[in-house]
Amino acid sequence: MALRNLIRACTHGYGKRYLSNEVKLLSVSVNDKTGVATVEMQRPPVNSLNLDLINEISATLTDLENNNSRGLILTSKKDGVFSAGLDILEMYKPEQERLKAFWISLQDTWLKLYGSSYPTVALINGHSPAGGCLLSLCCEYRIMLKNYTIGLNETQLGIVAPKWFIKSMVNVIGLRQAELGLMQGYMFSTDEALKIGMIDVIVDNKEGGLIEADAYLQRFAKILPGPRSLTKTYIREESIKFMEDIREDDLERFLLYTNQPAVQAGLGKYIESLKKRSSKN
Amino acid sequence: MALRNLIRACTHGYGKRYLSNEVKLLSVSVNDKTGVATVEMQRPPVNSLNLDLINEISATLTDLENNNSRGLILTSKKDGVFSAGLDILEMYKPEQERLKAFWISLQDTWLKLYGSSYPTVALINGHSPAGGCLLSLCCEYRIMLKNYTIGLNETQLGIVAPKWFIKSMVNVIGLRQAELGLMQGYMFSTDEALKIGMIDVIVDNKEGGLIEADAYLQRFAKILPGPRSLTKTYIREESIKFMEDIREDDLERFLLYTNQPAVQAGLGKYIESLKKRSSKN
Amino acid sequence: MALRNLIRACTHGYGKRYLSNEVKLLSVSVNDKTGVATVEMQRPPVNSLNLDLINEISATLTDLENNNSRGLILTSKKDGVFSAGLDILEMYKPEQERLKAFWISLQDTWLKLYGSSYPTVALINGHSPAGGCLLSLCCEYRIMLKNYTIGLNETQLGIVAPKWFIKSMVNVIGLRQAELGLMQGYMFSTDEALKIGMIDVIVDNKEGGLIEADAYLQRFAKILPGPRSLTKTYIREESIKFMEDIREDDLERFLLYTNQPAVQAGLGKYIESLKKRSSKN
Repeated sequence: MALRNLIRACTHGYGKRYLSNEVKLLSVSVNDKTGVATVEMQRPPVNSLNLDLINEISATLTDLENNNSRGLILTSKKDGVFSAGLDILEMYKPEQERLKAFWISLQDTWLKLYGSSYPTVALINGHSPAGGCLLSLCCEYRIMLKNYTIGLNETQLGIVAPKWFIKSMVNVIGLRQAELGLMQGYMFSTDEALKIGMIDVIVDNKEGGLIEADAYLQRFAKILPGPRSLTKTYIREESIKFMEDIREDDLERFLLYTNQPAVQAGLGKYIESLKKRSSKN
Repeated sequence: MALRNLIRACTHGYGKRYLSNEVKLLSVSVNDKTGVATVEMQRPPVNSLNLDLINEISATLTDLENNNSRGLILTSKKDGVFSAGLDILEMYKPEQERLKAFWISLQDTWLKLYGSSYPTVALINGHSPAGGCLLSLCCEYRIMLKNYTIGLNETQLGIVAPKWFIKSMVNVIGLRQAELGLMQGYMFSTDEALKIGMIDVIVDNKEGGLIEADAYLQRFAKILPGPRSLTKTYIREESIKFMEDIREDDLERFLLYTNQPAVQAGLGKYIESLKKRSSKN
Repeated sequence: MALRNLIRACTHGYGKRYLSNEVKLLSVSVNDKTGVATVEMQRPPVNSLNLDLINEISATLTDLENNNSRGLILTSKKDGVFSAGLDILEMYKPEQERLKAFWISLQDTWLKLYGSSYPTVALINGHSPAGGCLLSLCCEYRIMLKNYTIGLNETQLGIVAPKWFIKSMVNVIGLRQAELGLMQGYMFSTDEALKIGMIDVIVDNKEGGLIEADAYLQRFAKILPGPRSLTKTYIREESIKFMEDIREDDLERFLLYTNQPAVQAGLGKYIESLKKRSSKN
């Protein structure tokens, strides 16, 4: 699925904003033998991260933490798109309390995933722009199917990746490559992503990816969770402190920015164009 | 041109210290179609950075910023030497106010170039030691002609790269490679520079370099300058804050160091040796 | 020598805890021509770092500093094991003052080696887990014999690498690779270590390693020690400040952790198992 189609596909989600919470947006299954949880995003068509989906991810991460999970594999139910990123419908003509809840929940999700005590793998079985890329960058290990793209492409959309998105990328690929990619809003191919270290392994299909994910997680089978988790904390605590220090300022920036008339007008135009493109198909 | 010849060539500049400001040390041309400015250093023989040249660069960067430039290509008018670095004649038997102005202008130039809102490319069409290397490290993208050398070679000259020179290199090639290179004052060949990521592309000649430079800058043709610039700020603000925090202390260190009798004696000997070498040619 | 044998070999050291200080645990020889000191660890069977060995290293580093050494090559007298890391016998049923001295001496050694003004090379002529790896990471240059392993494998032993061990690794191989390696307690093969930049050169044997070590150190033969040393300080001072800031807290953590009954029980079991394994051979 080309990026153009991905954008087109986004429009199918329009109007589904207040999906009932009874519809599960995540499929969670735990392997009885290994204790590993496979969490599949299933918000058609492209797993856009709206408040409901983010809340479900956040709640699931809390469950895993409370149940001393042996590991998480985060993936998409369907190949094609891992996640298309934040649902812009949350930002257009927003109800202010919901807008605030949306961003706070996203920050919370980052803190839980980035700082999880259990090992985490992103199985990227499709395109992974912006917020989709962010989720994968929080994981410890990234496995990607060939012939897709991944990146923080915010500048291409006329917006700016928040500082903690940027830090998440710098932590994985280093300052230099992150700078080059971020300014251009570059979407890396699977091969390019491997070359710069944004992903760890390329696989042919999701089945192969699940095998690789299990292989990564089994490296910890004989390691005590306590020392593993404390080691991760030592490595990641500086970034987590950074997030905690900036999160209020970051929320204010987001609200101020999103509510600007010019930004609202831009979002309106963009959504219109998506609807038109969609209706032509 | 071998490094030995580069050093020899330096002597030709001796005595040209108070060049009239009417002689332009930079050639600036703006492409009407793309809005990109090509800025060529033309202070024969080796573009040594004296106060006048630094002031011209600094003023040009301000112009570009004020005119919302679409991009800068920084290069040398003549192949052979990009810039030989700081003009040591500024440091020998210095007039104190001028010495101070020299260093402050260099710091300002760094702040403007490193923090520019417009995209920047260094087209390194010759050797690029010390201050020449520093200028290129401030740019976003480095294109280098084959068979030249680049590096912060201060220790080879018996001096120490200031902390912000070091940080500029660490930001591009990482702590490990920077440490190895800096302690030895190592000059990397074009091929070595590509391998460790100090440059991005190798070209055969300046024409090819200009094509690559335009290609880099055109990646931003359809990206809004605002989000691009803010993204760059988010990535570079920590280094800019570092510079602002240390710049007074850094100035004091520079003045104190330069005025040491032993350092002056060393500079005197060095300049004498350059004059002798030069007169033999 | 496989890692299994290394662990087995550790037991031979049991009971040798209060070795007389008259037995030299280091062999130090200085090359008259180059001024380079070769320091060989010789605490059979595996150069476990007990208080005595650490104290000798620390004292030797002070000597080198005071005598304006031209360079250090740190290696093991015997091929097979560079150093097996900290001697756990120091931590089992410890006398509290000695335990405290043990950790403080290790911190001091790190500060002296990491911040040395003279150039330093680790010639890793055998396996180099945990504290052995740490010593080598403090050096400027790492030369390793083929077919051995190196890494901070603390999690494999059920313990946690202290923050300054972690920082030492991050400084050499970057955050991403350090994180992956540290959480798994992964021991990198010589080839893998070269690939991720943890070592700089692979050699066939110790003789070849000594030649490479001299070649590295001779790069500084014509460089003034002052500028070289200040350059190193500029690069490493942030990490040294980090260590100085955390060292009291780090000592407290170590003492608290080591004295936990559960940890003592674990150490006891581990030492018993080593003794049994050893007696079977």
